[in-house]
Amino acid sequence: MAMEEFRVLNEKSLREYIKATPSLASKLGNQLDNLEIKEVGDGNLNFVYIVISPSGSLVIKQAVPYVRCIGESWPMTKERSYFEATALKRQHGLSPKHVPEVYHFDRTMSLIGMRYVEPPHIILRKGLIAGVEYPLLAEHMAEFMANTLFYTSLLYLTTTEHKSAVAEFCANVELCRLTEQVVFSDPYRISEYNHWTSPYLDSDAEAVRNDKILKLEVAELKSKFCENTQALIHGDLHTGSVMATHSSTQVIDPEFAFYGPMGFDVGAFIGNLFLAYFSQDGHADQGNDRKAYKAWIMDTAADTWNLFHKKFTSLWDIHKDGPGEAYLHEIYNNAELWELVKQKYMINLFHDSLGFAAAKMIRRIVGVAHVEDLESISDPIKRADCERRALDFAKMLLKKRRNFNTINEVISAAQ
Amino acid sequence: MAMEEFRVLNEKSLREYIKATPSLASKLGNQLDNLEIKEVGDGNLNFVYIVISPSGSLVIKQAVPYVRCIGESWPMTKERSYFEATALKRQHGLSPKHVPEVYHFDRTMSLIGMRYVEPPHIILRKGLIAGVEYPLLAEHMAEFMANTLFYTSLLYLTTTEHKSAVAEFCANVELCRLTEQVVFSDPYRISEYNHWTSPYLDSDAEAVRNDKILKLEVAELKSKFCENTQALIHGDLHTGSVMATHSSTQVIDPEFAFYGPMGFDVGAFIGNLFLAYFSQDGHADQGNDRKAYKAWIMDTAADTWNLFHKKFTSLWDIHKDGPGEAYLHEIYNNAELWELVKQKYMINLFHDSLGFAAAKMIRRIVGVAHVEDLESISDPIKRADCERRALDFAKMLLKKRRNFNTINEVISAAQ
Repeated sequence: MAMEEFRVLNEKSLREYIKATPSLASKLGNQLDNLEIKEVGDGNLNFVYIVISPSGSLVIKQAVPYVRCIGESWPMTKERSYFEATALKRQHGLSPKHVPEVYHFDRTMSLIGMRYVEPPHIILRKGLIAGVEYPLLAEHMAEFMANTLFYTSLLYLTTTEHKSAVAEFCANVELCRLTEQVVFSDPYRISEYNHWTSPYLDSDAEAVRNDKILKLEVAELKSKFCENTQALIHGDLHTGSVMATHSSTQVIDPEFAFYGPMGFDVGAFIGNLFLAYFSQDGHADQGNDRKAYKAWIMDTAADTWNLFHKKFTSLWDIHKDGPGEAYLHEIYNNAELWELVKQKYMINLFHDSLGFAAAKMIRRIVGVAHVEDLESISDPIKRADCERRALDFAKMLLKKRRNFNTINEVISAAQ
Repeated sequence: MAMEEFRVLNEKSLREYIKATPSLASKLGNQLDNLEIKEVGDGNLNFVYIVISPSGSLVIKQAVPYVRCIGESWPMTKERSYFEATALKRQHGLSPKHVPEVYHFDRTMSLIGMRYVEPPHIILRKGLIAGVEYPLLAEHMAEFMANTLFYTSLLYLTTTEHKSAVAEFCANVELCRLTEQVVFSDPYRISEYNHWTSPYLDSDAEAVRNDKILKLEVAELKSKFCENTQALIHGDLHTGSVMATHSSTQVIDPEFAFYGPMGFDVGAFIGNLFLAYFSQDGHADQGNDRKAYKAWIMDTAADTWNLFHKKFTSLWDIHKDGPGEAYLHEIYNNAELWELVKQKYMINLFHDSLGFAAAKMIRRIVGVAHVEDLESISDPIKRADCERRALDFAKMLLKKRRNFNTINEVISAAQ
C-alpha cells in the first residue's frame, strides 16, 4: 500500500493503514480483524488513537498541519512529528524505563506508532489534581532528566556529534517559535490569545505587562532559550507530558524537542509541581484539607532537584574521562577543581531551572494555555486566589532566583 | 573545462583554471596571456595567489585538506573554504567597505576568487609592529563588528532565519574544534604543540596549568563558544586577519566563521591590540621609545569598544520595530526599560569580550600559535618580559572581567 501523500486518517483508514504496515500489525499479533480503536487526543495539537487487538496494543499519533485546538487558521508544520519520533527514539535509548518505545514512523503521514502506555497509567496532572501520591515520581523524573540531558550535552558528546545534532533539530523551529511566543512574549504584552480569571486578576495581568524588572529577566531567559544549545531538551516537560502509576513514570510528547537550555526541562517540571501545589487549596474540601498532599508535592519537587543533581553529577563523574569535550580530564583532574567545576555548573543550571519554572508558571496564569490544576477550580474567587499566590511567587522567583542556593530555600519561600 | 575533482593548483594549472572561468577572466579584462601570478600564502592553512593582468587583478585562495604549516599529518577539511566564501559574501553584504568582494567560488576545488586588497594595504599586525598609526582603524573595525554581528543576531533576524543559518554553519565544526583545542584547552594542559620563551617563562606556563580559578573561568568561556549561537562571528578576528592603510580597513580570512558568541570577535580584536601594546617595549629603540605609539594603541582599543557600543546600540534603536524577535517592540516600548535592556545586553557583551580577549592573549604566549608582535623581539629576555606582563594582565582580566564597567578602567589596569 503506497503512502505517497499525506492525508488525515480516521478510524476506518487507520485500520487499512495498520493492515498494510507489518511493523504495526506484528505488535498486534497480526490479529487485525476486530481491532478496538479509540481516538483520545485531548491535547492541543494532534490526533491520538489507542489500538487494541486480542493479543497486543499500540498507540498511533498523527500530526496535522495546524494547531488542532484552534483549527486550520493556526498552521503548524506536521514535520514536528519527525522531531517527536526522533526525540522519542533517542530518549528511549537513554532512559528506556521512562520513555515508550517507537514501533514505526512514517514521515510522509506524520504518523508515529508507539507503545500504548496502558491503564492504570494516567496523565500525571490529573493524578495531582486528584491528590494521588506517586512515591517514585521524583526518582524517575530525575533519572529521565539526568540521562537525557547529560548524554546529549558536551559533557558527554564530542563537538562533532553535538553540532550535528544541533543542526538537525534547528529545523524544528516552528515549535520553538510557538514556545517563544506563548511563554516568553505573549504574557508580557496585550495579546488576543491571553486570558486570566477576570475580573479578579485584571490588575495582576496588567502588573505583569508593566513590570520592567520582570521583562528584563524574561528577556534573558528567552535569549537562553533561543541561543543556548546545551542539550537535547524535551521542550514541553510539564505534568501533562508524563503518565504515571505508583510504580511507573512515562514521559511522552517531545514534539517541542530541540537543543536548548537544560533548565527549560527541569524548570518546566518543577514549575508545574509548584502550580499543582498552589492549586491544592482550591481542591480542598471538608473531607480532605490537602495539607499532607501539599507537603508531598513539595517533597517531590525537592527530591526531583536533589536526585537530579546527584544522578547528573554521578554520570559526569563516571564519564569524566569519556568522549565529552567540555571539561577535558587532563585539564580538570584535580579533586578540588573538579568539585568547583561541578558546583559552578550545577548552580547555574539550578538558577536557570528556577527562572524557567517561574516563566512557565506565569504563562499558565495570564497567557493563552492554562492548566487543569487551576482551571478545574470552579469557584472563580477561590481560583483567582490560588492563581494570584502562584503568580506572586513566580514573579519573585524569576527576579530573585540567583539568591537561592538550595531547593529547600525555594520551597520555604513558596510556603 | 570540467572541474570534477579536487586537485591542488600550481601557477601553471591556475592559469588554465582562470582562462576557463569567465567570472575570473572578466575581472582581469580577459587579458590572460601574460598574467603575473605570485603565491603569497604566509598563513597557516591555505595557498593564496595574487593574480595581475594589464587591466585587472584578483586573489585566488585555495584550501588544502590539511594544515599547511604542519603538513598532511594534521588533516583539516577543505570544506572550510565553503564557509569562508559564505561568510565573506554575507559580511561583504553587511559591511561592504570593510570586506573584499567574492568574484567566484568553486566548492569542489575549495577555491575562492576575490578582490585583491592591493598595496599599500598591509597586514595590520605588521603595521602595529612597525609603529604605524591608523587614524580610522577603530571606526572601521567598530563598523565591521557592529554590522556583521547585529544583523546576524536575533536582534535583527527572526528565529526562523537565525536557526537556519545556525544549522548551516554547524557543519564548520572542524574549524570550531581547532579553536576549542588551541584557545581553550592546550594552554591549560601539557601539549606537544605548546611552546613559550623558555626557560624564562617555564614557571609562568606551569602556573597557567595549575591555576584553578583560571581554568574554571576558561571553561565558562569554552562553553559559551560551543553552545551560544548569538551571531555569525568571524571566528579569527586578530590583527593578522585585517589589512589596512591610513584610510582603508579590510577584514579577510573568515574561514572559522560560525554562529557563536559576539564577544569572541570583539575580544579577539581588542586582545590582539593589547598584545601589540605589551610588545612595544620590545620594539623600542634609541630613536623611538614607542611611548606615544603605546598611547595610540590604547586609544584605539578604547575607541574600538566605545564606537562599537555606539554603532551597535544605534542599529538596535533603528531596528527596534524590525523583524528581530529577541526584544519585541510591544513588550519593550518604554524608554526607561529600553535603556535597561541595552545596558544589560552590552555589559554582558563587554564582559564576554574581555574574557575572550584574555583567553586569546594567553594562548598566544603559552600555546601553539604565537604572534609576530612578540616573536619578532629577538632578545629572549626582553621578549619574555613583554610576554610575562601580557600574560599577567590577561590572567587578571580573565578572572576579574566582571569588575570592569568601562574600557578605560581596563586600559588603566593594563598601564
